[in-house]
Amino acid sequence: MLRMKHRAIIPGEGQVTILDQRQLPHKIILNDYTDYRDIITAIKRLEIRGAPAIGIAGAFALALAARAEVKTDVEHMKRIMTDLAEEIKAARPTAVNLSWGVERVLNIAHDFGGDDKQEFQEHLWDEARSILEEDERLCEAIGRNGAALLKDGDTVLTHCHAGALATGGAGTALAVIYAARDAGKKIRVYADETRPLLQGARLTSWELMQEGIDVTLICDNMAGMCMKQGKINAVIVGTDRIAQNGDVANKIGTYTVAVLAKEHEIPFYVASPYSTFDSGQARTGDEIPIEERDAQEVTHIQGVPIAPEGVKVYSPAFDVTPRALVTAYITDKGITPGGRAD
Amino acid sequence: MLRMKHRAIIPGEGQVTILDQRQLPHKIILNDYTDYRDIITAIKRLEIRGAPAIGIAGAFALALAARAEVKTDVEHMKRIMTDLAEEIKAARPTAVNLSWGVERVLNIAHDFGGDDKQEFQEHLWDEARSILEEDERLCEAIGRNGAALLKDGDTVLTHCHAGALATGGAGTALAVIYAARDAGKKIRVYADETRPLLQGARLTSWELMQEGIDVTLICDNMAGMCMKQGKINAVIVGTDRIAQNGDVANKIGTYTVAVLAKEHEIPFYVASPYSTFDSGQARTGDEIPIEERDAQEVTHIQGVPIAPEGVKVYSPAFDVTPRALVTAYITDKGITPGGRAD
Repeated sequence: MLRMKHRAIIPGEGQVTILDQRQLPHKIILNDYTDYRDIITAIKRLEIRGAPAIGIAGAFALALAARAEVKTDVEHMKRIMTDLAEEIKAARPTAVNLSWGVERVLNIAHDFGGDDKQEFQEHLWDEARSILEEDERLCEAIGRNGAALLKDGDTVLTHCHAGALATGGAGTALAVIYAARDAGKKIRVYADETRPLLQGARLTSWELMQEGIDVTLICDNMAGMCMKQGKINAVIVGTDRIAQNGDVANKIGTYTVAVLAKEHEIPFYVASPYSTFDSGQARTGDEIPIEERDAQEVTHIQGVPIAPEGVKVYSPAFDVTPRALVTAYITDKGITPGGRAD
Repeated sequence: MLRMKHRAIIPGEGQVTILDQRQLPHKIILNDYTDYRDIITAIKRLEIRGAPAIGIAGAFALALAARAEVKTDVEHMKRIMTDLAEEIKAARPTAVNLSWGVERVLNIAHDFGGDDKQEFQEHLWDEARSILEEDERLCEAIGRNGAALLKDGDTVLTHCHAGALATGGAGTALAVIYAARDAGKKIRVYADETRPLLQGARLTSWELMQEGIDVTLICDNMAGMCMKQGKINAVIVGTDRIAQNGDVANKIGTYTVAVLAKEHEIPFYVASPYSTFDSGQARTGDEIPIEERDAQEVTHIQGVPIAPEGVKVYSPAFDVTPRALVTAYITDKGITPGGRAD
């Protein structure tokens, strides 16, 4: 199993420890939570982020909520679980994984047949743990499958953050790096800083440094030159959604990297759980709605203004990389070829 | 003549006014200087920047220095001018235009035949003014020639800052926008913010807003998506150096934009004085040395840390766009075709 130095969520006995990602990379703060409402707050204020990690946190939140109800019986607890689930899901209403994780624990609650309260609580806790462990195994499988694509001495470019901190395990794109390292390959990484929210600078470079991987931080606009100079052997990114035709929605800037990779004949890999292929109703990338973010994320960096007041801004959160620019999809079920001709 | 609302340098009677670009876009501060040493300081601390603007400032600095010497005769003044010129050129030793501007005034001083001190001083001042006015006319010609390439309703993407603030006139890339506007065309601009130093966010978007041009600020990694969405009709950038074969050195990120422009069949134009073609000994882009900048420019934004302490950084100041990616060069002497096949 890939052993990470830091994990986003660590379940304990009746409590959950969450690494406060808002403080990274400057401070490593671990918060122990026993009250589900604190986990809601943690999700709301982005202490924890990344689709799989949020889903796992939501599952534990509901399992914790069931533990808090001491003065009631199982029948009553089962009745109030639906309201508690809604409360947790409302922490980030658009996070599909959050709903999914919470629903899984809720279904277990509804299906519970006995009347032993402690057993009920443990049953829910075990389900939350299962979700975490399944995600860990997914990451492991993605990493192992992807590692076979990398050679000893390769340098990988990645965009945004698709690492351990976003999942229950070793991440998606970064799991490939860790698995290759564990297979004895020396792998270097170039990390795009990923404006506007700088996930590459704040999270990817930090996580890789913590794991002892040789990482070099660049501004997004330097990727082209690095490729032209022959510094990059492969690009690996994560993804938020994959349309039925294989088009990939991921953090803004991914499409630019994919175009550059094709121009320089560098393979472009998308790492994700196989289930991401089924995650949307979108038939093609054109059907994936693109969220626009607040102008302030571009005009200010950590509160400091860097642009004229009132300047017009265009800030899409994601872009869509057509299947034709993808060399292959790295999934837990194996490698699925993309649409790039070379 | 293109009339700019703001200019980098405004000569007066025995004094020079410089717009303090360090304060932009938050404050408009105009500093009046009568002492050449203050202009040296202004150049050193980047109150004034942009190759042509620095050359003009250097020329005025030497002309001002000659005015300060009241207790001596022309013969003696001519002797000390060389030392003064060296002192000014040392403000930014690698700035080719600074040396060039200072040398032009120095040559005028050495060639002066009379012994009338006031005449001598005015002669030098006139030469500095000539340098400014020549640059103004260059910008004007670049703008006029380039404007013919734009249609009413076009949207232009630009990278970094190649505007009025960098020159004695209306800029290079931005002069094309201003000239098209003055020719009655409605032109919109998308400005890349241009990490690490954010010249696009701080200067280009500010200057365009001041001139009443419809400008939208984006992060560098959004350019690809904007092109894919059909938002961009042309790319226009400036340049620092052009190799003999037409390869273009410009601010880091320019190459990425050029690759994206080709992929989307959007014309990619380089705007510069025709003399830039002769400016270097480099036969191809491979011979142009690429300056690497301090890691702190990437890891900190306006003093705020955004990356883990001690992270490795690669930060080239420039990149090289091969002639094959250039649709055409827009110069004061006309349009020179580039090497792009489409």
